[in-house]
Amino acid sequence: MQEQIAHLTHLDKDKKARMVDVAGKTVTERIAIAQAIVIFPEEVYLLLHKDNFLNHKGSIIQTASLAGIMAAKQTSYLIPLCHPLPLSNIQIDITIETNRLRIEALVRCEAKTGVEMEALTAASIAALTIYDMCKALSHEITVSEIKLMKKEGGKHAFQR
Amino acid sequence: MQEQIAHLTHLDKDKKARMVDVAGKTVTERIAIAQAIVIFPEEVYLLLHKDNFLNHKGSIIQTASLAGIMAAKQTSYLIPLCHPLPLSNIQIDITIETNRLRIEALVRCEAKTGVEMEALTAASIAALTIYDMCKALSHEITVSEIKLMKKEGGKHAFQR
Amino acid sequence: MQEQIAHLTHLDKDKKARMVDVAGKTVTERIAIAQAIVIFPEEVYLLLHKDNFLNHKGSIIQTASLAGIMAAKQTSYLIPLCHPLPLSNIQIDITIETNRLRIEALVRCEAKTGVEMEALTAASIAALTIYDMCKALSHEITVSEIKLMKKEGGKHAFQR
Amino acid sequence: MQEQIAHLTHLDKDKKARMVDVAGKTVTERIAIAQAIVIFPEEVYLLLHKDNFLNHKGSIIQTASLAGIMAAKQTSYLIPLCHPLPLSNIQIDITIETNRLRIEALVRCEAKTGVEMEALTAASIAALTIYDMCKALSHEITVSEIKLMKKEGGKHAFQR
Amino acid sequence: MQEQIAHLTHLDKDKKARMVDVAGKTVTERIAIAQAIVIFPEEVYLLLHKDNFLNHKGSIIQTASLAGIMAAKQTSYLIPLCHPLPLSNIQIDITIETNRLRIEALVRCEAKTGVEMEALTAASIAALTIYDMCKALSHEITVSEIKLMKKEGGKHAFQR
Amino acid sequence: MQEQIAHLTHLDKDKKARMVDVAGKTVTERIAIAQAIVIFPEEVYLLLHKDNFLNHKGSIIQTASLAGIMAAKQTSYLIPLCHPLPLSNIQIDITIETNRLRIEALVRCEAKTGVEMEALTAASIAALTIYDMCKALSHEITVSEIKLMKKEGGKHAFQR
Repeated sequence: MQEQIAHLTHLDKDKKARMVDVAGKTVTERIAIAQAIVIFPEEVYLLLHKDNFLNHKGSIIQTASLAGIMAAKQTSYLIPLCHPLPLSNIQIDITIETNRLRIEALVRCEAKTGVEMEALTAASIAALTIYDMCKALSHEITVSEIKLMKKEGGKHAFQR
Repeated sequence: MQEQIAHLTHLDKDKKARMVDVAGKTVTERIAIAQAIVIFPEEVYLLLHKDNFLNHKGSIIQTASLAGIMAAKQTSYLIPLCHPLPLSNIQIDITIETNRLRIEALVRCEAKTGVEMEALTAASIAALTIYDMCKALSHEITVSEIKLMKKEGGKHAFQR
Repeated sequence: MQEQIAHLTHLDKDKKARMVDVAGKTVTERIAIAQAIVIFPEEVYLLLHKDNFLNHKGSIIQTASLAGIMAAKQTSYLIPLCHPLPLSNIQIDITIETNRLRIEALVRCEAKTGVEMEALTAASIAALTIYDMCKALSHEITVSEIKLMKKEGGKHAFQR
Repeated sequence: MQEQIAHLTHLDKDKKARMVDVAGKTVTERIAIAQAIVIFPEEVYLLLHKDNFLNHKGSIIQTASLAGIMAAKQTSYLIPLCHPLPLSNIQIDITIETNRLRIEALVRCEAKTGVEMEALTAASIAALTIYDMCKALSHEITVSEIKLMKKEGGKHAFQR
Repeated sequence: MQEQIAHLTHLDKDKKARMVDVAGKTVTERIAIAQAIVIFPEEVYLLLHKDNFLNHKGSIIQTASLAGIMAAKQTSYLIPLCHPLPLSNIQIDITIETNRLRIEALVRCEAKTGVEMEALTAASIAALTIYDMCKALSHEITVSEIKLMKKEGGKHAFQR
Repeated sequence: MQEQIAHLTHLDKDKKARMVDVAGKTVTERIAIAQAIVIFPEEVYLLLHKDNFLNHKGSIIQTASLAGIMAAKQTSYLIPLCHPLPLSNIQIDITIETNRLRIEALVRCEAKTGVEMEALTAASIAALTIYDMCKALSHEITVSEIKLMKKEGGKHAFQR
């Protein structure tokens, strides 16, 4: 747990939503990596694997990658208190593991604030897109372990 | 696993993304409920609980509810092969459980296709909003168990 | 004041935002008209009037009309608890009055809920667009009297 | 009235909309504050006040604050000739006054052009959101006195 | 040329933009097909063809298909006087021809107005996406012959 | 054809969409000009010309200019692998030529990557808006010759 915790006891009296003012911060190169895991029932996984993760809706891997990239650019319209940022790179990697797909989203930006929400949003929407493309096979598919893996460029680096 | 599985062996030869044509389907009252869980490190949970889930960014519960409602309306712009739908209700319920918050998103619509992606998107974005509002306290917060809980009005009902 | 006032005493216990469920309502032809007034300092008005409300940014009337039409279509992304609706008409009328422009926005839709927020949003964004096009002349321009003028098709008609 | 007025006599011959080219301007810290007033019929105000501005749709103050923050980020998609800007802070303050709520929106940005349209848009959409949350009580609610209160960082400072 | 031409002589006096009111029209099944052609310099075409239209940015065909599908859903936010419509299907077909790719976009909807702008927008954005993915190879690539191929369900059918 | 062509033989093994990482590039003043041509059947052109390109939907030239400006700001949401950029100017020029309108879109930005997709998107959407405003007269109208005319500020300048 980090030092900012002291802030929590200084609650805003009217309790309304409050964006963090980043006007006084310096611009640095920011990077964040987040993951999301899509877990399939075994028979669904085997079927998808046999077909190389292609199905009647198209290439699951490619569609999810694109959806993740496009969602990262929408982050500040989805997460109410996020700042709009001129992202310089978004990369989605999808790895096939036993009975699951692991999505890793990397986002870079030169900015006054970090890009972890962009990375988390990209990974989450890529995961939901996989669900959407496979839901005709099963509604037992779940998305799990959405978390930050790495963060650099701000006051506090983070690495899992 | 459902009967549509046969489709998977009839792969589109050029493997491109393909929306499902719902033109021939009938309009019915659709409902879907999805959940997402936000898991906190214990000391973060205790701190948030003591402050009634209010922090320096505002009311966590209220901000996340609104973010979920607004995200549901954006679903067809986020999930590439989703149909745009005139949603008639979106409801976000956030329950405080030990060391975690459970989000349940209910979406209703009178349409030719279901609203499960809307419910899943609402729950996921509400969960990410909670992460955003608490990330100053810890980057160990995770979002998990995003899944469909219930679905009615289509060819196949589903209830977990 | 209307009969719904009783609702107010039945407050939601957790006080979170709540969309109105329109699933049980019937589809009717809805219409709403809203206005907004842009008030100019006299010398600015005279100058604009002499130039037929054209300035270095273009035709003020035409740009504002288009901005209002496009904003009406974005209403459900701007007003958090609004329902997305398939609007069938949006009409912006801008009338030149002494020292001011009066904007009237009419919106129509066949839906389960009304379009007054769409009409109000259209009128407001048209008014702000006029401000934007004239702000190089004066920052004393104000937008006022944004209000509903007429509403038909729901349980309660309204006419000012 | 400001010196730019001379421009008005140099009308563009084809009268089409024209963005201001800011390429040659220098980046400075910009700030703008705008207000909007929501005026209630007295009995509605008393009712809302008694319930601490909570009603069946949720917390009016919090929902309006969030809507204003999110709208500020959409400004360049709503006001046709506005530039897209990487905002560094958006703050919405809502004050309870007799029979009315006063919204003050502050926006900051390090940019080549100012943020007054962002502040005005945030205040206006927050005001319309209040209307939306209270319209079940009365359609006599109006939004008024939308205006710039302060502007710093550009060629001309402004303070009301 | 069609019968509506008489309308042209009844010009709106103030010349402002005007949406067509479709409130009185009946809902019918609408379909539209539009095309766009991407023309490559021969050496670029040969190179892309040899690599099966894959390059360092990914699969050109798949990315363009998805971009077209997603753009169709944004049509009413891009084309100012278009109506928002609940599209029931969007299909993008990309055919490899000598030195060019031919994009055909089909859109379906049950609505009071047609979907030709949706089909044209989908084809155009798919074509621009192909340009984007290949522009590192040449800036001589052009997009041409964007046109309606077929239209059914309205007052006037059209077939090229 | 440019030097990057070597990249094409180094295909990504999983063939997924890939944004170009611009993090290491330097910020420069970028400019791009693109064109699109709208071609009318002669009798439609004569009719429109006689009425000064005004029709029952409004001023064709002005509506198309605004649509182009607004579309340029949406480019990164339409073209999947485009970077979001803080555009400093967008200018649309529409020239009347025999039986056609020529649209030229100029976009400027101080950024790490160029704005040619923004210029091409602006020109294309302006052209489609013209189509939309005239389609009641004829469905034989086509959009053609969408291409880059000029590009400055990057590694490779381009001038047609």
